[in-house]
Amino acid sequence: MGIVLKDILAVLPENGQDKVCRTDIYLQEDKIAGIGEKPKGFAEEQVLDGTDRLVIPGLINAHTHSYMALLRNVADDLTFEDWLFGHIEPIEDKLEPEDAYWGACLAILEMMKSGTTCFSDMQMHIHQTSRAVSESGMRAVISRGLVGSGDNEAGQIRLKEAYEEKEAWKDCDRLTFFLGPHAPYSCDEEFQRIVAKEAAKNHMGVHIHLSESVNEVENIRSQYGASPIALAKRAGLFDGLAVAAHCVHVDEADLDILRECQVSVITNPASNMKLGNGFAPVPEMLEKGINLCIGTDGAASNNSLNMFHEMNLLGLIHKGNKQKADCVSAREIFRMATIQGAKALGMDANIGSIEIGKKADLAILNLCTPSMTPRNDLLAGLCYSANGSEVETVIIDGKITMENRKVLTLDEERIYEEISKICRRLGTSCE
Amino acid sequence: MGIVLKDILAVLPENGQDKVCRTDIYLQEDKIAGIGEKPKGFAEEQVLDGTDRLVIPGLINAHTHSYMALLRNVADDLTFEDWLFGHIEPIEDKLEPEDAYWGACLAILEMMKSGTTCFSDMQMHIHQTSRAVSESGMRAVISRGLVGSGDNEAGQIRLKEAYEEKEAWKDCDRLTFFLGPHAPYSCDEEFQRIVAKEAAKNHMGVHIHLSESVNEVENIRSQYGASPIALAKRAGLFDGLAVAAHCVHVDEADLDILRECQVSVITNPASNMKLGNGFAPVPEMLEKGINLCIGTDGAASNNSLNMFHEMNLLGLIHKGNKQKADCVSAREIFRMATIQGAKALGMDANIGSIEIGKKADLAILNLCTPSMTPRNDLLAGLCYSANGSEVETVIIDGKITMENRKVLTLDEERIYEEISKICRRLGTSCE
Repeated sequence: MGIVLKDILAVLPENGQDKVCRTDIYLQEDKIAGIGEKPKGFAEEQVLDGTDRLVIPGLINAHTHSYMALLRNVADDLTFEDWLFGHIEPIEDKLEPEDAYWGACLAILEMMKSGTTCFSDMQMHIHQTSRAVSESGMRAVISRGLVGSGDNEAGQIRLKEAYEEKEAWKDCDRLTFFLGPHAPYSCDEEFQRIVAKEAAKNHMGVHIHLSESVNEVENIRSQYGASPIALAKRAGLFDGLAVAAHCVHVDEADLDILRECQVSVITNPASNMKLGNGFAPVPEMLEKGINLCIGTDGAASNNSLNMFHEMNLLGLIHKGNKQKADCVSAREIFRMATIQGAKALGMDANIGSIEIGKKADLAILNLCTPSMTPRNDLLAGLCYSANGSEVETVIIDGKITMENRKVLTLDEERIYEEISKICRRLGTSCE
Repeated sequence: MGIVLKDILAVLPENGQDKVCRTDIYLQEDKIAGIGEKPKGFAEEQVLDGTDRLVIPGLINAHTHSYMALLRNVADDLTFEDWLFGHIEPIEDKLEPEDAYWGACLAILEMMKSGTTCFSDMQMHIHQTSRAVSESGMRAVISRGLVGSGDNEAGQIRLKEAYEEKEAWKDCDRLTFFLGPHAPYSCDEEFQRIVAKEAAKNHMGVHIHLSESVNEVENIRSQYGASPIALAKRAGLFDGLAVAAHCVHVDEADLDILRECQVSVITNPASNMKLGNGFAPVPEMLEKGINLCIGTDGAASNNSLNMFHEMNLLGLIHKGNKQKADCVSAREIFRMATIQGAKALGMDANIGSIEIGKKADLAILNLCTPSMTPRNDLLAGLCYSANGSEVETVIIDGKITMENRKVLTLDEERIYEEISKICRRLGTSCE
């Protein structure tokens, strides 16, 4: 089906930078078929009027735990240990598999309504989540969270689940599977080595939490004589496509490893602050030339899955922390939320920017909002002023999944009802 | 006219804390006339159905420069000097008085749409701003920005303007006037002393910028042998009702002065980060018992006037900066954005909480949104999950000023058109 975005402001790449231009964009089937010029043989079926609208590449949330949308606002303003062991884990123990499906639906609803068209998830309920992704028209990379010690059974069972799920969805172009060794404190060196080999054998990327807290780094150093990042390298986890979430407490040697091994770093500003872990050295990583992208982390530690929120935090906190107003720019951040996220997931040939031949994964913002008025520097506006509610239309894989803020692929009311029932059963609901 | 908010979740104060309860709220004329129980002789004229809705006291933006909404996204990712002298001031020089009116209208539109029902403004275009406040149904405290040296003419002219404006609006209950000595680097000690006396004589509060940057503090110390805060105290500015914006670079002695003199501090997290000034010592101020409230600052240094954005930042950044997840809570922050803002402006007997006898200044949120689902801890949700677009209805001084996200008192489309014309004339518009 041919869709034209007519006379629309668009964020387009030019020589490794983004610029805002007025143009026409032609979508055919699942792809961007033309920009500015109508492609030969284009059969126009639908015209979206671009007046007062801005189209951007769909945002890429590179690290989340989608089903945890269920646990939003259940435990806040607590130390990490109290948060995880005192509150989150006891509730998670009560979850049933179908709860995770509704949690994933809520997460996808929230992400779509704030312009995210692809997310990278790490978790255990991968079957329910894949179902929600498939039904909703979303694009996702799903990493089976793995914990294990040597070649023990727990690790092997989880690896098997990961392969089964990958096999089950092999015909769904919007679903990709990674292996998700959880963290160095839950996967010992031998198990990390096993996962690295499995990832290579199965041509899968690796998604891991690394160097999130001071405690983690101290414990791993004393146990292995290496930082979490050096350990992961030693175990072979960085031999293929690898993305590391957090990387807050890292030193110069860690940064050198990340750059040399071409590991992408996912920074999670809200979560790192909320749990008291601090600020990742984003300006230093930028300087090193590390491929940085952005994640919201789960809604239990954020408590939002809105990438505009995350871009905004990233634009502000390092300026505050370094007392340096020019240490990171809106333009750099927008690329982290789009093309650099795509690169991290090994998908930059297909998504992450508005270019001919790429997938039509787009978010269209209404500029007739206070936050986007005046239309001065719109890229700055995307980072510093927008809150995500400006997103009006979302297109994923060439299909309109949200129109005039109504998500067409999910039953929003039903999701609220089901979530409400679950939270009453869990005893977390205020009503 | 009598309005009933029927069977609605409400944030109500109880023993100095806020809690969420389901109740009925009765509004008569400009006031809250009953909670839970219908007041005697109440004539019901309109019922607002509270199903799936949460009513909160309208938010109070305690420090902004409203007309600067015009300058949103004109100059970003720059050092303070380059930002102010290289970009903002040259554009401000081109502004005509009527531009400030439209800038104020845009600011009020943005604030109302994100649940703010009262703002405290400091600036020079007070006539145009007062007009916009009056027409829009907003509540505001307007401080004529004052700069002066001794009893020079510049200072005297501005004081005269402040009194004239105060006199002109003496019948408008929603407009209050303060004196706004800009900062210690633009008001010398003698002029500060004059302003202090004028404020006392005219029963006006004082609104000042203090200790925003390292440079300011160093310069004032070397010039006066006192910190900006100690200097303001010495000049008498803290003898009456006083609110100080920023207070980022302060020491223990400064904090003691602020507490002893009962000066309210307005923290502006986004602006302080964006301009590279750092983090105000909010946890320390909380510990001291200083009355803290929240401001967005102007849209040129934020770039948003959305108080939900500011509450969220405040909930996260100090946890990150102190690496302490429990150093400030959502509950403390919600009070800063409401009752403590009211107290700072000397208006806590009338606004800032939902209590019988207070002004009906309310914001009603739609809870059927991803950000407010599930309904676990809703106060945490207001701080960590909401982005302001959940606000559906706004009531100020007993009148509905926004209904179903349509502002009834302002012509939204006209504002966008006028702002667009102005920014094209100023040469800042991207189109």
